[in-house]
Amino acid sequence: VQPLPDEIATVVWDGTGAPPGGRIEFFVPPFGVGNAKATPALSGLKVIQLMSAGLNRWDEFVPEGVTLCNASGVHASTTAELAVAGVLSLLRELPYFADQQRAARWSQKQAGTLHQRRVLIIGAGAIGTRAKVALEALGGDVTMLARTRRPGVYVLADLPELLPTMRVVILCVPETPSTLGLVDAAFLAALPDDSIVVNIARGSIVVTDDLINELNTGRIRALLDVFDDEPLPAGHPLWTTPNVLLTPHVASLCEGWQERAFSFLRDQVVRYVTGQPLANVVAGPR
Amino acid sequence: VQPLPDEIATVVWDGTGAPPGGRIEFFVPPFGVGNAKATPALSGLKVIQLMSAGLNRWDEFVPEGVTLCNASGVHASTTAELAVAGVLSLLRELPYFADQQRAARWSQKQAGTLHQRRVLIIGAGAIGTRAKVALEALGGDVTMLARTRRPGVYVLADLPELLPTMRVVILCVPETPSTLGLVDAAFLAALPDDSIVVNIARGSIVVTDDLINELNTGRIRALLDVFDDEPLPAGHPLWTTPNVLLTPHVASLCEGWQERAFSFLRDQVVRYVTGQPLANVVAGPR
Repeated sequence: VQPLPDEIATVVWDGTGAPPGGRIEFFVPPFGVGNAKATPALSGLKVIQLMSAGLNRWDEFVPEGVTLCNASGVHASTTAELAVAGVLSLLRELPYFADQQRAARWSQKQAGTLHQRRVLIIGAGAIGTRAKVALEALGGDVTMLARTRRPGVYVLADLPELLPTMRVVILCVPETPSTLGLVDAAFLAALPDDSIVVNIARGSIVVTDDLINELNTGRIRALLDVFDDEPLPAGHPLWTTPNVLLTPHVASLCEGWQERAFSFLRDQVVRYVTGQPLANVVAGPR
Repeated sequence: VQPLPDEIATVVWDGTGAPPGGRIEFFVPPFGVGNAKATPALSGLKVIQLMSAGLNRWDEFVPEGVTLCNASGVHASTTAELAVAGVLSLLRELPYFADQQRAARWSQKQAGTLHQRRVLIIGAGAIGTRAKVALEALGGDVTMLARTRRPGVYVLADLPELLPTMRVVILCVPETPSTLGLVDAAFLAALPDDSIVVNIARGSIVVTDDLINELNTGRIRALLDVFDDEPLPAGHPLWTTPNVLLTPHVASLCEGWQERAFSFLRDQVVRYVTGQPLANVVAGPR
């Protein structure tokens, strides 16, 4: 990875104590430390550059005249990869076969398959699009849903019609007022028996207690990478709920993520100092 | 699924005792019962139609004037699906996270990822091709290898040059004299540390003891769906070898396989009785 250009002066701040003094035009909050509570008082601030695709509420704290950018795309293939891994692992019952292996039992249980199975991907950004191509190559019948209706893309208002026909739902949608608590008891009840839910978006998209009820009956199975509280607290009922795979918010946190993130950041800083349009602008003046 | 046309008379034979008398032109051996030892003496035999993609040595026992067909393609997407499930599950360390979940531990271990990782698919048929598209959508850097060199497809003679650059090898190649025992100690030693081998072809492609040695050191991890002896015998060392996922030859044996197989078989029988060219001819007069 190429270093930052020499003319860029950097200051590392651990987020505790007073923010650094002097002019700080370009601010990169730490990766994966939960939701923003406020933007620190930085003199001369022009850009807040998140290293995540999710906004973690930074959009609520953008000062006047400041541009907010995310890192959509940087983690797209790795995040889609975990979603697909979860779908395939659950459909093909790899946890069941692991149990059989531990017991040294040869048991040719007929598992499910993606073949001709309907999959709803909620969130048609870089992550959802990559997951779609991978799942279609393996015979899945994929439908996309996003904020804006366009050819081949449904919207939230279509859910009552879509859900009874789906067997897999992948959540890779931003946390917004319309997606908070989207996957509740009614959403889950509309899915057919033996459906799968994968959440690699944000914990708040799912009403956890409602999902736990369905997981306990075995009607729904799930992979969850994100949670209302992270780290998932000791004693939380999810730890002992059946039919769910839990991963500790590692969808993007895998080999090489620092290099991928830094490489994007470097290019973005160069765009900033040379006056080119910034990539991944989410809110703000340019 | 549509039934066979009315004019087709069928005889079901369980393979024990004398073969049925009368004229049997079209013979469908049972699915997944191991290698052929001989072709039964059937009067008027014209076609042997396997329900598997693999030939299981039936090609060695095709009588004069008889056509051998396989069912390549019928199981392609489900078999590719298990291979991709194995690759992703191992790379993203889902077994490790399952252990953490059982211990109610939040441990953000940095797992591997397919992103920019080199994958060698040995076998460029329907299975390998589907796996390639899926893995590329998730950022993998895929190389194909087959019997015949063509643009973008390497051959066995290239292995010494290719293997040191690969991190994932998927075996979906037919069992032939040149692939028997292909994955031996030298093959495995040529792979870099922390590589993954997935075998959804035939057990005989891998020298099991050589693989077990590498699995025991942890240098290689694997998913094996096929074995020298199936069912894998009680007490076989693989049952207790670390770093391997074992599935009991279920790559194609998942929901709906009977319907997919029967639908192909019906179309093939109709082609036979109406004198059209047969699909998937592997050996024989037409």
